[in-house]
Parts: sequence; C-alpha cells; structure tokens
Amino acid sequence: MKITHIILALVSFATFDCTANNLLETEQQVDAMQAAANSSGSFAREFQRRKAQVDLAMAEKINVPLPADAGGGYTHEVHKRNYAMMRDAGRLYMITQDKKYANLVRDILFEYADMYPTLPLHPKQKEQSPGKLFWQSLNEAMWLVYSIQGYDSVKSALTQKERERIENGVFIPMATYLSDESPETFDKIHNHGTWAVAAVGMTGYVIDKPEWVEKSLYGLDKSGKGGFMRQLDELFSPEGYYNEGPYYQRFALLPFALFAKAIDVNDPDRNIFEYRDGILLKAITTTIELSYDGLFFGINDAIKDKGIDTMELVHGVTIAYNKTGEKGLLTIAKEQNQILLTGDGLEVANALDEGLAKPYPFVSKVYGDGIKGDEGALVVMRQNQAADHQTLVFKATSQGLGHGHFDKLNWLFFNDGEEVVYDYGAARFLNIEAKYGGHYLFENDAYAKQTIAHNTLIVDETTHFKGNTKVGNQRHPEVLFSEFDEQMQISSAIMKDAYDDVVFSRTQALVNSDEGHVFIIDILDVETEGKHQLDLPVHFNGQFIESSVAFTGKNKSQSALGEKNGYQYLWLQAQGKVTDNLAKVTWLNKNTFYTHSTVINSSNKQLDQELLMVRIGANDPNFNLIAKQALINRVNTAGNVQFLNMLEVHGEYNGSREYTIDSGSQLSSLENVSSQSNDDAITLIKATFETGVTYLLAIAKDATDKNAKTA
Amino acid sequence: MKITHIILALVSFATFDCTANNLLETEQQVDAMQAAANSSGSFAREFQRRKAQVDLAMAEKINVPLPADAGGGYTHEVHKRNYAMMRDAGRLYMITQDKKYANLVRDILFEYADMYPTLPLHPKQKEQSPGKLFWQSLNEAMWLVYSIQGYDSVKSALTQKERERIENGVFIPMATYLSDESPETFDKIHNHGTWAVAAVGMTGYVIDKPEWVEKSLYGLDKSGKGGFMRQLDELFSPEGYYNEGPYYQRFALLPFALFAKAIDVNDPDRNIFEYRDGILLKAITTTIELSYDGLFFGINDAIKDKGIDTMELVHGVTIAYNKTGEKGLLTIAKEQNQILLTGDGLEVANALDEGLAKPYPFVSKVYGDGIKGDEGALVVMRQNQAADHQTLVFKATSQGLGHGHFDKLNWLFFNDGEEVVYDYGAARFLNIEAKYGGHYLFENDAYAKQTIAHNTLIVDETTHFKGNTKVGNQRHPEVLFSEFDEQMQISSAIMKDAYDDVVFSRTQALVNSDEGHVFIIDILDVETEGKHQLDLPVHFNGQFIESSVAFTGKNKSQSALGEKNGYQYLWLQAQGKVTDNLAKVTWLNKNTFYTHSTVINSSNKQLDQELLMVRIGANDPNFNLIAKQALINRVNTAGNVQFLNMLEVHGEYNGSREYTIDSGSQLSSLENVSSQSNDDAITLIKATFETGVTYLLAIAKDATDKNAKTA
Ligand SMILES: [Zn+2]
Ligand SMILES: [Zn+2]
Repeated sequence: MKITHIILALVSFATFDCTANNLLETEQQVDAMQAAANSSGSFAREFQRRKAQVDLAMAEKINVPLPADAGGGYTHEVHKRNYAMMRDAGRLYMITQDKKYANLVRDILFEYADMYPTLPLHPKQKEQSPGKLFWQSLNEAMWLVYSIQGYDSVKSALTQKERERIENGVFIPMATYLSDESPETFDKIHNHGTWAVAAVGMTGYVIDKPEWVEKSLYGLDKSGKGGFMRQLDELFSPEGYYNEGPYYQRFALLPFALFAKAIDVNDPDRNIFEYRDGILLKAITTTIELSYDGLFFGINDAIKDKGIDTMELVHGVTIAYNKTGEKGLLTIAKEQNQILLTGDGLEVANALDEGLAKPYPFVSKVYGDGIKGDEGALVVMRQNQAADHQTLVFKATSQGLGHGHFDKLNWLFFNDGEEVVYDYGAARFLNIEAKYGGHYLFENDAYAKQTIAHNTLIVDETTHFKGNTKVGNQRHPEVLFSEFDEQMQISSAIMKDAYDDVVFSRTQALVNSDEGHVFIIDILDVETEGKHQLDLPVHFNGQFIESSVAFTGKNKSQSALGEKNGYQYLWLQAQGKVTDNLAKVTWLNKNTFYTHSTVINSSNKQLDQELLMVRIGANDPNFNLIAKQALINRVNTAGNVQFLNMLEVHGEYNGSREYTIDSGSQLSSLENVSSQSNDDAITLIKATFETGVTYLLAIAKDATDKNAKTA
Repeated sequence: MKITHIILALVSFATFDCTANNLLETEQQVDAMQAAANSSGSFAREFQRRKAQVDLAMAEKINVPLPADAGGGYTHEVHKRNYAMMRDAGRLYMITQDKKYANLVRDILFEYADMYPTLPLHPKQKEQSPGKLFWQSLNEAMWLVYSIQGYDSVKSALTQKERERIENGVFIPMATYLSDESPETFDKIHNHGTWAVAAVGMTGYVIDKPEWVEKSLYGLDKSGKGGFMRQLDELFSPEGYYNEGPYYQRFALLPFALFAKAIDVNDPDRNIFEYRDGILLKAITTTIELSYDGLFFGINDAIKDKGIDTMELVHGVTIAYNKTGEKGLLTIAKEQNQILLTGDGLEVANALDEGLAKPYPFVSKVYGDGIKGDEGALVVMRQNQAADHQTLVFKATSQGLGHGHFDKLNWLFFNDGEEVVYDYGAARFLNIEAKYGGHYLFENDAYAKQTIAHNTLIVDETTHFKGNTKVGNQRHPEVLFSEFDEQMQISSAIMKDAYDDVVFSRTQALVNSDEGHVFIIDILDVETEGKHQLDLPVHFNGQFIESSVAFTGKNKSQSALGEKNGYQYLWLQAQGKVTDNLAKVTWLNKNTFYTHSTVINSSNKQLDQELLMVRIGANDPNFNLIAKQALINRVNTAGNVQFLNMLEVHGEYNGSREYTIDSGSQLSSLENVSSQSNDDAITLIKATFETGVTYLLAIAKDATDKNAKTA
C-alpha cells in the first residue's frame, strides 16, 4: 500500500505538465467546440439543453451515499447518476471554462475520494466479480469510464493538491482494484474485460500512467494473452460480428469505441483504428447493419425495443464518422437524434446542419462468425431498399455463448417496416421490478432459448444439442454458398450435429422478380434413417386470414402442445391433416398479405403430415410470456424428408381508401422437379403462379453454383 | 315513358342557357383554380398528380360492361372506377379547358346512355333496394353523385344533341328510378335516403330541374315528411351526433356535404349551412371530434382503421373551411394530406401553403344523442392535450339502430397515442374475400355486439335488452350531469331498463392532479333486489405485468368462459378469489404502465368476488376474431353492489435509454367513505396514494353538483 502511494505522488506531479492533452479530443477540436457553443446549430442547441439540465441538477446537494443496494436499487442509481453528471459537467467546463462546473466535478470526486479507500466489498456483491461502489465490478468499471472523462475535462482547473486528493483517494485505488486485484476479469476475453481495460487504460492516459495503458492493451503481464488487443483479435469475426449477436454487440461497443478513441488521440502512432484491417470500425458498422428499420434483429437474448438510437451506438457512429467521413453514417446519426458534446460530436452536428447526410448503404452481406469467420455466419439478404425494403435474416451462426439460442438455421423476415416472421427474443422485462426484478425470466431458458421458439427444425420435440450450451458452443453450421444479385439473394448452410442421427441443411432465397412477384423460397432437407417427428414452425406476426387445410378447432377447451423443451408453453389452437399438396396459411400484417406454403417431399409414402396453429400462453400463470402465435408443419415418418416452403408477399389492404387487392395467394404449384428425375447433382424447384408465370430455381448440390431461370 | 321524354327535351333546352353556372363553385373560384394550376404550391402539385393519373388511364379503352357482379366483383368495381374517372376528368377540363377531358367524360356517358334505358334490375340484386347498374340502389346513387359532377364540369363543351343523348339516356332515367320509382328509399330518413336525395337534387341543379331539387329537399310529395331537410332535422342530434356513431357518420357525411354545397352555390338564399343552428357544420366538426390521434372512436360497428383521412371527411373539412375559415380545420386538412381540385380545395391548399393552420380545438364535450339531444349522450373527456392527450369516452348513447352494440354505459380510454381500454369494434375484414366476402362476420352479432365484448355491466351472462335491437332502440340511458374543469372531467349517467330487475348508474372522472397523478375514477352502482352474477370487464391493450390477486393459471388446458351471449368466444386463462380489498391488475402499453383497481362495496357480506383473465379465441376455428384480452371483475351476490374502480396512468418504461420508473401502482387505498357514514345524499370517495396524497371526490346524489378536494 505504501509503495503505491509513493508512485502516485510522482504520477500526479508528472500529470501537471500535460494539462493541454485531452482524453477524447485534440486542442483544435476543443477550440471549435467553444466557438460552436456560442453560435447556432444543433451542437449549440444540444449544449444549451444539456447546460440547462446540469444547472438544474446543481441546485441539489451532492449525494454520495454509502453503497448498499443491488442493481436498480437506490444507491446503485445514485452512483450512476453521479458519474453521468461528472461527465456532463466536465464537458460543460471544457466548453464554457466556467469554474462552477469544474468545482462540481471536483466536489463530487472529493466525496468519492474520502469514501472509497475504506470501502469493503459491496454488501450485495454479485457472484464472482463483486465491486465496491456497486454490486458487480462491471458497474465499477463503467463508473470509472465516465468519471475519468469528467476529471480529464476539469483537471486543468484543479490545484495539485486537489488532484492528489482525488487521484489517491479514488482513481488509483479503483483502477488498481479493477486491474491487479481482479486479474480474472481484467484479462478475460469478454466484454466485461473490455469495460475493465477501457476504464484502467483511459485512467492511465488521464493521470499519466503509461504502464496502465500497456497493461490495458496487452494484459496484466503485458504478454498479449489478455488485454484490449487480444479482445480485438478474438471478440469479433473478421466482418465485425460479435458472437452473442447485435443486442450484446451494442452493449460491448461503448468501451471499445471510447478506449480506441482515447488511444487514437493520445497514441496516434498505434493506428488503433487500422488494426486488424479496421476491425473497430467494422464492429460499429456491423452493429448498424444488423438492424431493420432502426431496431436490432431480435436474435439470441435480445430485448426487441433496442436499436440504433442506443447511447452506445451514438458514441460509435460519432467516432466512426470522424474516422471515415462516411456520409451514410450521418443518416444513422440523424435517426439517433442525439448530438454528443465532444469534438467528434461537433463534426457530426456540423455535417448534419449542412445537410451532408446520404442514405446508409444497407446491402446483402454474409457476416462470418468466429475468430476466423468460418464458424457459420449471419446471412443478411436485403431487397428493394427504396420501397418496402425486405430483409431476410438467415441465422447460420454458431451458438453465441451464454446468451445464444438453440436456433440453428433459423430465419427472420421483415417487410415494409414490419417484423413478419419473428424470433421471440429474450423473455425479460428489463428494469421492471414485478417481473423477477427485471432479470431474465425463468421462461427465457425454458421457452425463449428452446428450438420450438424458433423457425427451424425440431426433431422429436427435442431442442438442438439437447439444450446444452457447452455442447452448442463447440459446434456450428457450415455455410455452403451465398450469392446476391438484382433479382435474387440466396444462401445455403448445413447443420450436421445438432442431433445425433439427423443432419439438416437449408437453402433460402429472397426473390423480387421482374414480373413483380416477391417471395422467399425455403428448402429444408432432413437427412436421417430413423423414424422421427419433424416440426417446422413459422412464427408470424399478423391476423390469420385463411388456410388451405381444414382445421379441427379447439372449440370448448384447448391443451398445451407438449410437456417439455418449450412445448409446454404453447396452446394447440387448431390442427388439421394435410391432404392437399400445398399446406397454405395466409395472414395480414398491417397492409400486406403473406402466404406461407409447404410441400413435403419424401420417398416414404407413409407420410403423416399435419398443420398446427399454436399460441404462447400455456403453463404461464403469471403471464410472463407474450401471447404470440405460430404455425407448425409437422411430419411423422422415417427416412429423408424435404420441407419445400414458400413465403409469398402479396396484395394490399387499404382501410382508409376502402380497397383490397390480391388478398389470396397466387401460388398454384410448388414442386421439386429434380426428385422426380432422380438427378442428384442438381435440385430443381419449380414454382407456378396463377398469373401464369413459372420460376425455376436450380441449385447445384456441390454447393458452388446456383442459377435461377424464368420460363 | 313518352311524357318523360318530352319533358326532358324541354329541360335540356333550358340548361343550355346557364352553362356558366357550376354545381360546386362560383365563377371566381373557377378562375382562381385555373390560375393556381399553372403556378406552384400544393394545389398545383395535386393538379399535376391527378392529371398524370387521368392521362395514363386515358390510354386504355373505355370499358362500360353490362352489370353482372355483386359488391366487390368485376363489373361493380369497373363502374366505380368509371364514375371516379368522370369526376376527375371533369375537374381537369374545368381547370385546363382541354377538350380531350370533356370528350372523355362525354364518351363514357354515351356508353352509359346507350345501355341504361334497357337495363333490367341488377342480376345480383340485393334485398329491398336493388339497383340496375349495381346490386343495390345505394351504389347507383353514388354513381350519380359522382358522374353528375363530371357532366357538370364538361357540359359547356358539349353540343345540345350530345347533352340530350346523355341526359335522356342515363341521367333522367336514373334520377327517376332513384326518386319516383324508389319512394321507400328516397323518402327514408336514413343515410341511404341522403345518398338518393343528394344524387337527384344535384342532378336537378345540373340539368335544371328545380322540381327535382324540391323533391330532394322536401320529399316526393314535397310535404317535408321526407327529403334532405327532414334528414337534417332527424339524423343528427343538436350537437351533430349521428346515432350510429362516427364510423357511419363519416360514411353519411359525403352526400350531406356535397348536396349542401351544391345548394349553397346554386340557391344561396336557402342559407343551408345556417339551417338548424348550423347542423351541417356541426355534423362535420363532430365527426372530427369523435376521434383520437386521427382514428375514430371504435364504438358500434366501427372498423378501427378508419379515421379523419377518409375521403368523405376530406370533402367535409374542405367545405367547412370555406364556410367558416376556422384555422383548426387546416390542421385536420394537413393530416388528411389530400387536396381537392375544387374551389374550396384551392382555398384550403392556399391556406396550408401560407402556414395558417392552427391546432384543432379538441375539448371535452357532451354529444347528446337523439333528435332533441336528450336520448343519452356520448361524453368525451379530454385532458392534457399538449402532451400525452388523454381521452376518456363515456358511451351513454342510445342503441344506434342496426349498427349499434349492446354496450350501455361502456367506456374507452386513450393515452399517449394508444388505445388503452378498447371496444372491439366490428368483427369484419372489409373487402377481404376469404373472410365471408368482406361482409360483417357471423361473430359480429355473436360476439362483437354482445355486452361481454364491452367494458360495462353484464348481469347473469345476459346481454343488455336480451340482445334485442328493437327493444334497445326504444330505450336509452339518461345523463345525470357532466362537468369539465382544469383538473377534472366528470360525467354520470343512469341506465334503468337494460335489464328487467337491475338498474345501474355510472360516474366516470378523468383527473390530472396538481401533484402529477393521472387517473380515472369509475363508480358503477348496481341496484337490484335479486341475487345475480355481475361481471364488469375491462378490455385492455398491453402486456400483463402483475396482479394483487393470486391466480390459478390454466396450465395444461383451458376452457371457454361460457356457452352463449359472447361468453363462448372467451378462453378463461386464469382466475383468482379476491381476498384483498383492492383487486389490482397492472399492464404495460408502449412506454406507460396502467393499473386497474377495483373495490366492491356492498351491504351484503356474502360477497363472492373473483378476478378473471380472458382472451378471445374459443369456438373460433377460422380465427375470425382477434385474440385480444380482458380482465373481468365478477361478483355473485344479492342486493345492491358498487364497483368502485380506478385506472391509474403511471411510470415510464424506456427501452432505448434503459430505465424504468414507477412501474408499480401508487394507489394504497380506495374507499367509499359515504357508505360508512350512511349519508345518502352524497357519495364520498377517498383515494390515497403512496406519495401520501389523498383525494376526496364528493358526488351529490341529486345529480346536480360535484366537488373534488385534495387533502
Ligand atoms: Zn431466439
Ligand atoms: Zn362495441
């Protein structure tokens, strides 16, 4: 302890000489911010708004309570408010040079400095990584990331003595606690580790401890086994995809972006934004691109109201615009509707004021998963971006660690601003006390993660990998091919080991034909020798209109669909034997009709095929789940089976103008022509519409070629 | 027949001399339109758009098929398109004086003139009032209302011979068919009658048959027993409320507005817009006012996507703005986003271009029902219009004829753009063939009209008036009082004869307190001597969060709630005995929490009180109903019972900023203090919140005074 204190004194002395150096912006940027705040425009407006807010808050007494409450509780929230306030007041001092803001930051930090050294571990400490101010060290790192920004902005206004009191009292011991004293978290290749290294590294820059920056970059032993650089190497795929999906990618983004920005400003020679072929910028743009209409794709444990306007992505977009000048980012910034009071924020504000924004270039793309990008992929197929902007998400990723769902070769579909074929996302009501304190609900594991909650194959009512995450993390699908052109986007993948004796592969194509037909072709091939029950659900949003199958409705009572693996949460509303060739279901979502059609191909004539309609809600006495619906195509048979599906997008319902067109499906036949000709090299799908148009889709089995023709 | 022809010749001769007279605008307005079309602005833009549309359509061959199909069928739709095209082409000729448009109207009318005289009744004739071109005479009247406008605009370009051919061939025989030959419809005091008199009256102006105008105004016998004036007397209440509700009011508005406009232009001395204290303008503004966030209140047989942007109301608002210059109407016009190519349309366009629009003055108001306004009322209570704009609709109207629902003393509530407490509206998918041809579904009568589909009292699972519309039309609630001030809006009504031996009265108050509490107090008093099951449902939109009642969930199977009167369509999802004083249910809708609390007051201690959670969907194998939900407070007891309810609006869920405040109900107690003191003259309600604030609501039983105090 004593040694630490001596080093500290030296450090704070050294700091004194470099007050001109700012953590997140150049001196020119600071000058520009000071000028901009006094002129007009969106930066000035945001400055005035934020100033009024802080001025109002300053009227209240500083409140730094002894840590007592867990996440969401009183002291937790107060300490969170304090760090945000210090960051904001620091910004205001940087811009106005009005001492009252510097004094505010100083006075708050004095209280923390007086309290922190004697704090024991938090009384409500959480699991393996407790904090002192907060129940978990993750929140402690967040406190430091924000507070150090506030301190950085005001330290030029403080005396050496004041600085020593603050740095010795709180920053040094906290950074030490988060690094040397918490090696497991600090050296972990995980977003919690990123928060820790960002906090310690940023603190290292501000109080001039290059050693801390080194440790943050290369791990406590500076070997590169831990630290920020290895996180950059391993937490993103080469395309910038984060294994847990966009919801968690967004969460992880803030420390990545802020620390990188600090490195860029303070150590420009490290060329951090060029590292690994620009991985940081890719991580930011990929987060943007894994969204539809402003909301992230709801895969894995996503809470579905999160999107590109989250604070983390505001920072990411602002920093990325400064580095790239990409005008598409400005459109995202405009939708975020939130200007940052930083040097980069000013550049975004000016560019927006000048009307420089261009549409963000959303395109079809394969986002490889895994360090090398070869452990499956998230395939995003986009069409018709100018008008109805369809997006088909083909989820051929690997498991996604603890927040992953058992949803191999799942898909989602969006059209005209609506999520038409959905993933349930997480079963969680964030921050709502009555719902298990706002944590993940029991039903998240029991239902939302299970395969039946997804639009993919379930064999014998059993979840992929038998619901074992560890096993899932070791296996992944293989993407066979992906091709994107004007009329058609197509991708194919195979999953070999989700089940012991079943291999399944899936090919999905999004077609916008010259004749005006919009549809998805979806071919699911199941290879097995045994006899199985095969379920293929489609979770759809909208109002059921009609089906080609005659249902036996559950008129007076209805029962749960099954006993376990998520089936126990579904009411079986109606079911019907499929006797017709095409099993069709049509629904209406907003103003558009959708028809899902299924043909089962099998050499086995003993096909027992059914169509089921289900709704979430059984075994849910506390209504923890949302009562959404799905259709399920079910087959009981032995041997190989092909589910050949089409989703048609058709017609228009116009309520206010009182007309409806093409409310019925136009598909008259859907066939696998190749199975008849016994030609194994090529799968040939033929779809005929009532308009007389026929489409042929030829897929080479060697998985290197595909071709589509219109006859 | 022969006599008719002779008269016609005279008439068309007379017409020739007055080509300068236009049906819907003055000469000055026509001049202004011609000038405006060549300048810039929104009128010119609409002119260009419409011109491009008509020019495109002109490339196709004129198509006037022999009538064959029913509503929605091919010939039906073609004849509808034709009349819209004639109206539009007429407008274009009026503005451009380009003969090609006049020729188009002429050529189409020639075809009709050649065909009409020999047409029998329509092959798919509907019920009592068949048409010839269309299956029902209602559509025939619509054809005439539109086509005569087109003819009016171009007739100055036609030779006398051309006019004779058209007038003799189609206008005269059709107007004769709709008037003299269809006396039941023409003289009916009903919106079908309005279409007929508007069609014949407008035709009278255009082809100069003042006799027809007289008949249209005062009935075939010109006694005033039928006709437009009596319709104005009887179809609207003094406040401009139309008995069937806003959805049908909107539908009826077009012929009222157009014919009145034609009268105003051609017979200004009739002062038609001043008639009955300005009833026509009141009918228009009332239609606007019976809406929330642009959509009509979903009462009676309403299809809930209809709102103020419907074509009928575009005409209404345009005409009303010309008469009144009320700048609030411009805000409605802006939301309608549709400029009419008429003289009045130009005035609206200019005013919008000049930025003259002011907020529409939505206020709390009692819309009396019935000719004298004393057969109940729709009470609309509005608060906080600038921000969250709450609207409480207390439906104390009379039955509303064939489209009325059995929903005496029902209520709806809207907040922050959302319908929070809903009425199901109509069970109908307009124009969707697969859903019973787009007609009202069987479930409209069987479920949507039934009392259980509403938020009001159901005694012994029996619908009001035993579900008999004729009986319902003869009875109505009585409004006891209504008072609106800054903090509180309150209204009270009594329904004496919905049941043989039960009288119920209801008082509803919408409160925005100085302390920031927003809530509804809802007191339902049930007077009876017998023993009954009393159900009081609340149909809510949102996700269930929690309840104070311990539910027994229906885990493995669930059953329909009842056997008849709509109960057979509800799944009983969960139920619980109410043992606590307050039966609470909290839900989340968008970003706001709502808690409904109920206290049952009764002198009878043998209270058997339950809370039920239900969802629509039982006995509905074709999914004709939308799977919405409700809570039901149920009491089984004898004698008088008071349901004392509160709906709290509280808290905020912010997904993108990740915070939640006040997700729990703040109400700690709700009491009827007067029942304890046995003071019969005054009902005294006491509500205490966890913030420590207590509200007292005193309601004098003599129904002439109310008072609320904050302690
Ligand atoms: Zn999922
Ligand atoms: Zn209703």
